[in-house]
Amino acid sequence: MAYLNENYLKLRTGYLFPEIARRVREFCEKNPEGAKRLIRCGIGDVTEPLPSAAVEAMKRAAEELGHRETFRGYGPEQGYEFLRSAIAQCDYRERKIDIADDEIFVSDGSKCDCGYILDILGDQNKVAITDPVYPVYVDTNVMTGRTGLVRQDGSYEGIVYLPCTAASNFVPDPPKEHVDLIYLCFPNNPTGAVATRKQLGGLVDYACRHDALILFDAAYEAYISDPQIPHSIFEIDGARECAIELRSFSKIGGFTGVRCGFTVMPKTLLARTESGKKLPLHPLWHRRWSTKANGVSYPVQRAAEALYSPEGQKQCRALIDHYMGNAKILRDACAKTGMEVFSRMNAPYIWVKTRANLTSWEMFDQMLRELNVVITPGSGFGAQGEGYIRISAFNSRENVDEVAHRLQTFWGAQAASR
Amino acid sequence: MAYLNENYLKLRTGYLFPEIARRVREFCEKNPEGAKRLIRCGIGDVTEPLPSAAVEAMKRAAEELGHRETFRGYGPEQGYEFLRSAIAQCDYRERKIDIADDEIFVSDGSKCDCGYILDILGDQNKVAITDPVYPVYVDTNVMTGRTGLVRQDGSYEGIVYLPCTAASNFVPDPPKEHVDLIYLCFPNNPTGAVATRKQLGGLVDYACRHDALILFDAAYEAYISDPQIPHSIFEIDGARECAIELRSFSKIGGFTGVRCGFTVMPKTLLARTESGKKLPLHPLWHRRWSTKANGVSYPVQRAAEALYSPEGQKQCRALIDHYMGNAKILRDACAKTGMEVFSRMNAPYIWVKTRANLTSWEMFDQMLRELNVVITPGSGFGAQGEGYIRISAFNSRENVDEVAHRLQTFWGAQAASR
Repeated sequence: MAYLNENYLKLRTGYLFPEIARRVREFCEKNPEGAKRLIRCGIGDVTEPLPSAAVEAMKRAAEELGHRETFRGYGPEQGYEFLRSAIAQCDYRERKIDIADDEIFVSDGSKCDCGYILDILGDQNKVAITDPVYPVYVDTNVMTGRTGLVRQDGSYEGIVYLPCTAASNFVPDPPKEHVDLIYLCFPNNPTGAVATRKQLGGLVDYACRHDALILFDAAYEAYISDPQIPHSIFEIDGARECAIELRSFSKIGGFTGVRCGFTVMPKTLLARTESGKKLPLHPLWHRRWSTKANGVSYPVQRAAEALYSPEGQKQCRALIDHYMGNAKILRDACAKTGMEVFSRMNAPYIWVKTRANLTSWEMFDQMLRELNVVITPGSGFGAQGEGYIRISAFNSRENVDEVAHRLQTFWGAQAASR
Repeated sequence: MAYLNENYLKLRTGYLFPEIARRVREFCEKNPEGAKRLIRCGIGDVTEPLPSAAVEAMKRAAEELGHRETFRGYGPEQGYEFLRSAIAQCDYRERKIDIADDEIFVSDGSKCDCGYILDILGDQNKVAITDPVYPVYVDTNVMTGRTGLVRQDGSYEGIVYLPCTAASNFVPDPPKEHVDLIYLCFPNNPTGAVATRKQLGGLVDYACRHDALILFDAAYEAYISDPQIPHSIFEIDGARECAIELRSFSKIGGFTGVRCGFTVMPKTLLARTESGKKLPLHPLWHRRWSTKANGVSYPVQRAAEALYSPEGQKQCRALIDHYMGNAKILRDACAKTGMEVFSRMNAPYIWVKTRANLTSWEMFDQMLRELNVVITPGSGFGAQGEGYIRISAFNSRENVDEVAHRLQTFWGAQAASR
């Protein structure tokens, strides 16, 4: 009988979002009135319509495919030049970051890239992951056998966890031991934290000294409002020798259902064989795409390209401003109830200390029951997330105003009376 | 320094299609006149416009995303129910094959699925692959460490090759030894061969007796014209316990640039752990998609769904009839020059014995030089492909008529004079 990949059996079954869905379903069945009032600020999924520049580009591309003269079949596995060039130019070279067109690899989203990237890396790499963390980094490592078993607290043997706490503004210190791979995500999901130039410099410095590789997830870079905060790891000297960057159009252009992202793989980045031979990773990544994919859907790539047009840029800006407007309303509303809020307006997530030292799940249940609002318990992102909740700002303004109103109505009075 | 995946270093560098591209480029640089006359019958990429049903569906879906009322964000990772249900109903249940909606997993193409499927299978599986073969099956196994080193003839240590020769109509006998995984593709790329019900029965019977798993690639099933030939492995009794089927809209609906396919993963299919525990693969595959993907682009899924509408079905039929008309012209033209042709009108590829015992690459060069026609050398698909060429019928009628004309003009007289 064929063997299955036993690493899958190490995965915890109670994955965060299914458990949330279960509790919400149970609540709704028991509380039909509450169910009607339910507002979801849990999963970070966009709600506002796709920018019209992207809609029109996709429709034009679909129409092109309908005519022999403009039909296109297989595209380049690594992405069309028109998109790779727009990305490298607008996101990097215009910001004085030295990235070539062929260092951009277009994908169907950065969640996918998180898993794909492990294809070209050895199983023996020692992996460091922040805590709290986006669960996909962990699970894809578990699935490929790069960890041991799960512990009682949900952490995995074999992974080096880098605690991110309020004391360090939720940015990790460089690892205290040697590691080969470090996952970083700034602006952070779930905490909303950003890393300063100095903090990123310290992490790049560690990577250079230890010959480690940084996987830098910048899916939320467009939400940075503080001009001092780097948008890309490649703004840091030395990063071209030690980092790969993952980006996505999901949260910039409302592409969660359209599916497009990209990886920046510098040609200067080396990795080693067991025998110590140093080789560039770029040709392996190129080969991975050539062999395992046929590129992203042509109309989708045209839609992504359209986000870089002057009209597209304006529409993306309006989307981000909308969600950041939501974030401000939610942050202020939480603060008014006396809760401790850690977000500083560089991300679409509000990271909040639970009330009265509740656990994350207790606070989840309380918000569901009393406010009929769904959030994400911080402990779902790791042990260090315990005692926090994440509120997503991806919502309509109407819903966000209502959440703020309920926070004030139900809990504001208590804060005032304390 | 981070470790790279050394299995990539085992891959042969001279991959088939890059080598073809190199020779064509060299020819064109030296022969500007020949370059102008060049007709490509090499890579199996569609040339005709996308069915209007798909174009319109994609445009409507893009428009939906542009309005708040109809906007959709993240879709189900395994594919939208509307598409999974259309597939299971039209491709299976209407043909009396018992497949449930949730046994369908929508992907961005069957090339991708060929690689993805290895995610959930153990590294210790003994793999059998036909020779000749679609190179992606081999390369994805090499990349994940399931083979040894490459031999002089391009084969890999550790793989069991199942020879497909003219004597057996290019359908392999069941393996003579124990294997855990068997890759099959019918109608076959590159040979165009189909397997009869009896032949598939023998292979399924082997799989059941050996508890082996068949990965059945049916990307070309719509090209079957012989009513006796099964379209799906699941037409064979016992296959639900031993087979996974991969399908694609690429060659049915001209989707090579749109990107959509699917895997059929029966819930009755078991695999084993090292200790002998038997578990269903379906939950692992489900988990793989939940963790590593966010589903296929919504407008793409709507376009695929539209292929199942009465209008879409008619348009797909017209596309297939066009390419099969091409195949007949090419087959007849080759036969008239005295070449031995093995295709029997169930696939868009013509598999032809080389003239005068030339090697595949010699014949490639001769066709390029004398006829200015690009084909694919059979030896590129494996040792047993030596002495054959593959001519793709994916082309405009005008080009195909011209290829037939050149075959007659340059080589027809020689055949007549023999």
